[in-house]
Amino acid sequence: MSEPDRQHESGSAAAVGDYFLPAGSGSRHVIFPGVEIRTTAGHQLMLSVVRFEPGSVVADHSHPHEQMGMMISGRLEFTVDDTTRVLGPGDIWRIPGGVVHSVRALEEPAVALDVFHPIREDYL
Amino acid sequence: MSEPDRQHESGSAAAVGDYFLPAGSGSRHVIFPGVEIRTTAGHQLMLSVVRFEPGSVVADHSHPHEQMGMMISGRLEFTVDDTTRVLGPGDIWRIPGGVVHSVRALEEPAVALDVFHPIREDYL
Repeated sequence: MSEPDRQHESGSAAAVGDYFLPAGSGSRHVIFPGVEIRTTAGHQLMLSVVRFEPGSVVADHSHPHEQMGMMISGRLEFTVDDTTRVLGPGDIWRIPGGVVHSVRALEEPAVALDVFHPIREDYL
Repeated sequence: MSEPDRQHESGSAAAVGDYFLPAGSGSRHVIFPGVEIRTTAGHQLMLSVVRFEPGSVVADHSHPHEQMGMMISGRLEFTVDDTTRVLGPGDIWRIPGGVVHSVRALEEPAVALDVFHPIREDYL
């Protein structure tokens, strides 16, 4: 993500050796207006719980990291390359490294879980 | 997982090039009695949606793959190495490769999302 962090609390990240992390923990970043992530890094995997306010947008971007994820609640309009879909709970995305993608929240809040490999150093 | 598949439907797996996969899709395996997974593989990441019936158990096992995951619904008793915790929605686990772990469902059904790196060939 080329957008600079508007807010970042790294102090909330768990110790790297912990096996269990409670809901709502992780390193907090506000990556776009109305889009907050909480990230937890392993060795080669990173989880990112993403909370979208209604109407918020993650603009077109790409990164070398492979990304997959699943909708937890609400609905989001996802665009990957030239394909756009509205996704709901349980729907999955799979974005190879380097492929441009964007997300737009609809009229409701939404929560998604993103997974990255390797870990995104900018999200630690 | 050393346990043999009791059921496996690989025909439901999506084409590897698809960016979006609908809820409930993926390759289905029943890995233990009452424990069903639906897996979706990328290049170096695999997602596995795991459905536990009440009282079902994933016995002690380990694998070289790094594993992380998040509770989606219900509660599960997780044991990683010598640490046991009851986890609920939004709680996260982080299991380095080679570390023994097990899971026990309580009195209710539960759904978890597991993530593996690299992909588990036995779950394709």
